[in-house]
Amino acid sequence: MSTPRTLHLNAFLMSTGQHEASWRLPESDPIANTKVEHYQRLARIAERGKLDSIFFADSPVLFGEVGRRPAGKLEPTVLLTAIAGATEKIGLIATASTTYNEPFNLARRFASVDWVSGGRAGWNVVTTAGPDAARNFGVDDQPAHAVRYQRAAEFIEVARKLWDSWDDDAIVADKAEGVWGDAGRIRTIDHEGKHFRVRGPLNVPRSPQGHPLIVQAGSSESGKDLAARCAEAVFTAHQTLADARAFYADLKARTAAVGRDPEGIKILPGIVPVIGATEAEALKLERELDELIKPEYAREQLAKTLRVAPEDLPLDRQLPADLPSEDEIEGAKSRYTLIVELARREQLTVRQLIGRLGGGRGHRTFAGTAEQVADAIQEWFDGGAADGFNIMPPVLPSGLETFVDQVVPVLQDRGLFRREYTASTLRGHYGLERPASRYAGIEAPQLTSIGSGF
Amino acid sequence: MSTPRTLHLNAFLMSTGQHEASWRLPESDPIANTKVEHYQRLARIAERGKLDSIFFADSPVLFGEVGRRPAGKLEPTVLLTAIAGATEKIGLIATASTTYNEPFNLARRFASVDWVSGGRAGWNVVTTAGPDAARNFGVDDQPAHAVRYQRAAEFIEVARKLWDSWDDDAIVADKAEGVWGDAGRIRTIDHEGKHFRVRGPLNVPRSPQGHPLIVQAGSSESGKDLAARCAEAVFTAHQTLADARAFYADLKARTAAVGRDPEGIKILPGIVPVIGATEAEALKLERELDELIKPEYAREQLAKTLRVAPEDLPLDRQLPADLPSEDEIEGAKSRYTLIVELARREQLTVRQLIGRLGGGRGHRTFAGTAEQVADAIQEWFDGGAADGFNIMPPVLPSGLETFVDQVVPVLQDRGLFRREYTASTLRGHYGLERPASRYAGIEAPQLTSIGSGF
Ligand SMILES: Cc1cc2nc3c(=O)[nH]c(=O)nc-3n(C[C@H](O)[C@H](O)[C@H](O)COP(=O)(O)O)c2cc1C
Ligand SMILES: Cc1cc2nc3c(=O)[nH]c(=O)nc-3n(C[C@H](O)[C@H](O)[C@H](O)COP(=O)(O)O)c2cc1C
Repeated sequence: MSTPRTLHLNAFLMSTGQHEASWRLPESDPIANTKVEHYQRLARIAERGKLDSIFFADSPVLFGEVGRRPAGKLEPTVLLTAIAGATEKIGLIATASTTYNEPFNLARRFASVDWVSGGRAGWNVVTTAGPDAARNFGVDDQPAHAVRYQRAAEFIEVARKLWDSWDDDAIVADKAEGVWGDAGRIRTIDHEGKHFRVRGPLNVPRSPQGHPLIVQAGSSESGKDLAARCAEAVFTAHQTLADARAFYADLKARTAAVGRDPEGIKILPGIVPVIGATEAEALKLERELDELIKPEYAREQLAKTLRVAPEDLPLDRQLPADLPSEDEIEGAKSRYTLIVELARREQLTVRQLIGRLGGGRGHRTFAGTAEQVADAIQEWFDGGAADGFNIMPPVLPSGLETFVDQVVPVLQDRGLFRREYTASTLRGHYGLERPASRYAGIEAPQLTSIGSGF
Repeated sequence: MSTPRTLHLNAFLMSTGQHEASWRLPESDPIANTKVEHYQRLARIAERGKLDSIFFADSPVLFGEVGRRPAGKLEPTVLLTAIAGATEKIGLIATASTTYNEPFNLARRFASVDWVSGGRAGWNVVTTAGPDAARNFGVDDQPAHAVRYQRAAEFIEVARKLWDSWDDDAIVADKAEGVWGDAGRIRTIDHEGKHFRVRGPLNVPRSPQGHPLIVQAGSSESGKDLAARCAEAVFTAHQTLADARAFYADLKARTAAVGRDPEGIKILPGIVPVIGATEAEALKLERELDELIKPEYAREQLAKTLRVAPEDLPLDRQLPADLPSEDEIEGAKSRYTLIVELARREQLTVRQLIGRLGGGRGHRTFAGTAEQVADAIQEWFDGGAADGFNIMPPVLPSGLETFVDQVVPVLQDRGLFRREYTASTLRGHYGLERPASRYAGIEAPQLTSIGSGF
């Protein structure tokens, strides 16, 4: 008798909500982005709904359009730590860039969050697109897309070695003999690769989960390869069931092809649920939000993504025919393709496209009643397109509250979602094992210090 | 009428205490170093005593002697964030290295901790001595001492520019007009220096303190120069009143010489208070702790610091005569000199020196009653040697509890220390102003994004 497959749900938290105009609603606190209490409250709502995890996107740069919507935010590992103290069970996932960090520092930070949260930390590995971020780190332009992904793969390898550098039982704490750690169970990793040379060991004992959960969110060819090799959960954006299903089959096949169990990678497309008591009410809310978008801002952003001048995008015309191909894009490849395909498939004008992107930012928006949202979720889940969803409420906190109070019970009644947590770690929620250390049982060479401490 | 000068007190927190054998006492939890509750409890004790701040040392490396004492610890900005949620007023200072971090990432992290704590964040700027740390970051040996300090100075400059990149009133949040931030009050910093090129702006709005407090802890010539130019508080280690007084006068003079108010830099020597109901009891506790030190470990560490072989340090002989001069040391210069001078001045054997270092690690140890500890503190404070102290309890939590419950009331009765907090930020506790932004009032050039977001 096999256990029935159940959904995994993550809450995507972003200041006043996923919809770019959400901050303009009367109910929204426009400076919520610097308030830790706001995020603690959101996390507690998500925990009330027994969601698997919450998630913060991130990039080490201030995006240009500060006029347009709340910009700037607290560093995500700091924010997760503050949330860890205000919650008990829910998983905590932060994005961090492999292009603009050092593996030792980041591995340490996630291990620390894992300790502080009792095993609830996850890391969304991203390669950070765009020259703006590069210029905050002494380089004029982003490294090439392929190079960023090579570095990301090696970065994860180094992090995992560091997380394994202490055996689980390395601390003996023998007060009588005066021996604290067993030097035979703590080791240097002596990593020598193309991008990194790292000696180790990490200066944090092996954390509750062994390895914090690895999440991945790039959907280009290189992104999918990285996910297949390294990721345990994947966030992705699809507009249609067919696209999502193709992505799902592709990624599970790639995962199997590298010798991993396809069950060990959970695929979570985004959905922006606009929920109303009736369908008409939901559509009205969606329309009201879209009408608050200022097209001049959004057109500028779109022009940058498409690498054309804003003047080449008249608001009431469709996209120009001669846009670059994905191959020519060095930034976020899959996002570029998603936008162009959406516009062409639905023959959207620039104004309509902006409405669609402003609401979901490339993710599927679904407006309807709680029952209809549950149906939409179930359709993709049963249809081989998802292991769960990244829930991106258009407005926060209200959109998350509505989801938790109205959609989650429907999913529970249908037997699709847990009624209580059955685990207390992030890996546990996603049904994943705690990894053994790659070095377990191997005697470490005597650790010698080559210099002195401070 | 001038306000009477009052002490500033910081609590130095380190797993089971400053004494290297503290973890072996029956009362100690030897794995406290990974437990956030332990540190939250310590911070609450310090807050009960109205101390200015708590502090964590740090280095991005695991020091070699894992057998000897608790090794490894949580990353300090993560730990401070967890403590922020468990306290209300006390300042929160973390050490971070300018040699193995990027200014954008670190400036952002401290700004985030400042937001999360409501203006209580401080950063102890260190340059990180030793090749072990270097090898965790792809380099074979530490950069030269002078180069590390040059980089540190530029690093702080960049951080401060980033902290100023948003005006305090940059967020207009005009819902009706749909304008969130005023692009004229958020700017790139376009820093181009010898070590860093950073465009900015920071992706965090200006934080409650404007700039987190800058603390400094290196006492070499370069260290003192950096402190004079940049620091607002200084941790330092001295064994004698004469040495501490000379350091104090020197650093205040250097601060005045660069055009700063010498009151704007608070000098805090370390003191390890071993407190007993009687002097004899205090001395007994000190002796018991020292007897738990295993000399073989400590000798190895000492040999590394002195750059000799362990065999050249017979336990019952004094130090060899031909040791290197401070000029030849590329690591922690002032610590090296302190150790050698202590041994020579007091004609200590290696075994005795190890006892002294194991207890205080170079800091002044003082054993006595609460009254006597208060006297020792007052003597240096009145004697022109200190603006306050870095309290380094030999055993935690008990040594901090005793200090707070027994020494603090004596200092309060003498009018030397606050009975209640009069401020709610770290700067406020240290009597320092909130800095104005260097850019305030200067119109920012229109911020343009040169790439697109994800
Ligand atoms: C839900 C979701 C969240 C994402 N969050 C981030 C993020 O926080 N930071 C980031 O740099 N990229 C993020 N990405 C990835 C980018 O959208 C983009 O895919 C990436 O820059 C590179 O992907 P590529 O492999 O498609 O080129 C996210 C993607 C998805 C689907
Ligand atoms: C109380 C105190 C705490 C310190 N904490 C650290 C620390 O956490 N990390 C570090 O690398 N150096 C720390 N230092 C500085 C070193 O001891 C040493 O001074 C530094 O490596 C370089 O200093 P120099 O200027 O003497 O060469 C601390 C110093 C003192 C007095």
